[in-house]
Amino acid sequence: MEKIVYERVSGGVCAAKGFMAAGHAAGIKASGAEDIALIYSEKPAKAACVFTTNKMAAAPVILSRKNIEEGIVSAAIVNSGNANACTGEAGFRDAETMAKETAKALGIDEKNVIVASTGIIGVPLPMDKITAGIAELAKTVKAGGNESAVKAIMTTDTYPKELAINFEFRGKLVTIGGIAKGSGMIAPNMATMLAFITTDINICRTCLKAALSEAVQESFNKITVDGECSTNDMVLIMASGEAGNEKLVLGDPDFPIFLAALKHVATELAKLIVKDGEGITKFIEIEAAGAKDDIQAALAAKAIANSLLVKTAFFGEDANWGRMVAAIGHSGADLDSQKIDLKIAGIDIVKGGVSAGFDEGEVAPALKDNEIKVFVDLGLGEGRAIVWTCDLSYDYVKINADYRT
Amino acid sequence: MEKIVYERVSGGVCAAKGFMAAGHAAGIKASGAEDIALIYSEKPAKAACVFTTNKMAAAPVILSRKNIEEGIVSAAIVNSGNANACTGEAGFRDAETMAKETAKALGIDEKNVIVASTGIIGVPLPMDKITAGIAELAKTVKAGGNESAVKAIMTTDTYPKELAINFEFRGKLVTIGGIAKGSGMIAPNMATMLAFITTDINICRTCLKAALSEAVQESFNKITVDGECSTNDMVLIMASGEAGNEKLVLGDPDFPIFLAALKHVATELAKLIVKDGEGITKFIEIEAAGAKDDIQAALAAKAIANSLLVKTAFFGEDANWGRMVAAIGHSGADLDSQKIDLKIAGIDIVKGGVSAGFDEGEVAPALKDNEIKVFVDLGLGEGRAIVWTCDLSYDYVKINADYRT
Repeated sequence: MEKIVYERVSGGVCAAKGFMAAGHAAGIKASGAEDIALIYSEKPAKAACVFTTNKMAAAPVILSRKNIEEGIVSAAIVNSGNANACTGEAGFRDAETMAKETAKALGIDEKNVIVASTGIIGVPLPMDKITAGIAELAKTVKAGGNESAVKAIMTTDTYPKELAINFEFRGKLVTIGGIAKGSGMIAPNMATMLAFITTDINICRTCLKAALSEAVQESFNKITVDGECSTNDMVLIMASGEAGNEKLVLGDPDFPIFLAALKHVATELAKLIVKDGEGITKFIEIEAAGAKDDIQAALAAKAIANSLLVKTAFFGEDANWGRMVAAIGHSGADLDSQKIDLKIAGIDIVKGGVSAGFDEGEVAPALKDNEIKVFVDLGLGEGRAIVWTCDLSYDYVKINADYRT
Repeated sequence: MEKIVYERVSGGVCAAKGFMAAGHAAGIKASGAEDIALIYSEKPAKAACVFTTNKMAAAPVILSRKNIEEGIVSAAIVNSGNANACTGEAGFRDAETMAKETAKALGIDEKNVIVASTGIIGVPLPMDKITAGIAELAKTVKAGGNESAVKAIMTTDTYPKELAINFEFRGKLVTIGGIAKGSGMIAPNMATMLAFITTDINICRTCLKAALSEAVQESFNKITVDGECSTNDMVLIMASGEAGNEKLVLGDPDFPIFLAALKHVATELAKLIVKDGEGITKFIEIEAAGAKDDIQAALAAKAIANSLLVKTAFFGEDANWGRMVAAIGHSGADLDSQKIDLKIAGIDIVKGGVSAGFDEGEVAPALKDNEIKVFVDLGLGEGRAIVWTCDLSYDYVKINADYRT
């Protein structure tokens, strides 16, 4: 496959043809900030969705799992400030009401509405505010609504996360755009993160589902802020077909072109989430190679990424490789302790399981960078994995000690 | 089995008949504090040892695994300030030298010496200082040496951890005493913790080994400070037989009496470690009940105990039960989301998976306590597990951001 050039364009989740959005302050958040968002496809879009693996899945996740079954979505309604999780039967009825009110306001089928919520767990949604908010969203939804929509899905996020690209596909210009939120409770296999991706490619539902699964595996499932996995995670993709390309179907030789573009968007959004990790001062890429297989490589990379001792050492700008090697040692991955090599920012730190005799003065400037790469070679095979994470600072503790009260 | 009364006595690791100890400042620690300790049994003692499961086991662990095979130990030599981990062949030779020098100074067999180290990873031991230190220890070792020995095994510990008890066994007074260290890198299945337990009970080696395994499972393997598992963990027990009781042998009906006493000592030492957890402001007991089996209960309890979001919430004195329920949800334990009950300090917080409608004002004083109990009932079976942990404060981050430099 030749290297495709992606052109960055504005418009986020509204960049692809056929999509509109809106955000609104419905009064769910005490701060008065935007807290409800709508993403709307003028025609019912082909759609696929990936959900949290947490067994305490929130009400909107349970409803949306049912509504995505047919693979057709006209709108996604999303609130922040309240997760509608651990809210029992009443919570499920509230999620249904969100879908019903959205469908009524837009004149669409309620089964074609995806509902998502993020925020505090265990508190009933203020349904009067939400119902009024939905009516307002339906009135104001527009092609340029991405900017207010992306703000309305934020919780402890410090900046909105959106992205859109164009690329040529079978002689047509195809657009993929998306928005995402997430900052804490972030771990591989879905976390308190939401992402909504829209595209105008003409594609069959099976292809779209396969592409989303693979793209999520390579992007959102590779990030971790604090090793937590939430009750509300969701990544939705909607395809309007408006790009007018010859339909992409199963087994199509051009499938990798779309998949690569989707991975690009998903990976950029995933990295934006880590870069806004709660209390972050450094973005860290952990690459593990030389493992017996990719699964073992992922075990090693995730063990380093989730180690509190490693994360606090990075916050302290300390090349504390012993903690990384100890984390690998209890990761469960097969090891030969005399074959482990480790580099930080390309500098040899560990060779054959012992110190490479590096110069602390040489590593120090690299540790002051905002972005740090760690490369571990287990020296056993061809397995390889990448995980993106961040350091652990005083501010992580501060944000999370004070979140609810 | 009738309830045994344990009498607390002084003397720590020297309380049992036949044991002496010493501590010394050999100059390994830059602070000039005590950093090398000796525990000595006048006659070769029956012994058993449990080691870290970390695949990057340190040199002293590798050597001691070999030396414990025969089940006879005359002395344990322990240094703090340097873990002698990830130090390769040279590190292993250094551990051997520690055993040899100890054997030479005491006139014992070097195969009967257990070596333990704790501290920074990846730095060669200053062997000249250690050799001189061992000679000094052999000169000063005495029955009252427990106080300097327990100080000499500390790293980031803020207080020494020792304990001894007497109890009657077959008409004789039996003593069990111990010392422990550990504060960070603490998780179930052994962490950067060391414990040395001595007893004068007359017991067969097989019994001693079985008792230690079971006691460790119920004590040190139930604590977690930061979910880390280190390269150097070790729990050693030595039995001198000096109590003069009729020998305790395999299948003996009195075995449970000794086991219960050993568990008591091991559990108290384990709790002392958590109570000195890095940056701790609160000691937290998590009990999970109603799981399908004990393993599933442990999964649920550990997921809560290791959740950064739960730990920071306790630091913030916030009854953030949603984070606990979310942690159970991704613990891997079988769940019915509508059957989960949760209490904090005996107050109903969650009933049937949703808020029990508790009064925040009623919970607030309990959250200000130094010790907090969380009880989770999964409502599915008879499985039960307890884990002891602590909160996560600014000081944990501070201690670990600055540890090495």
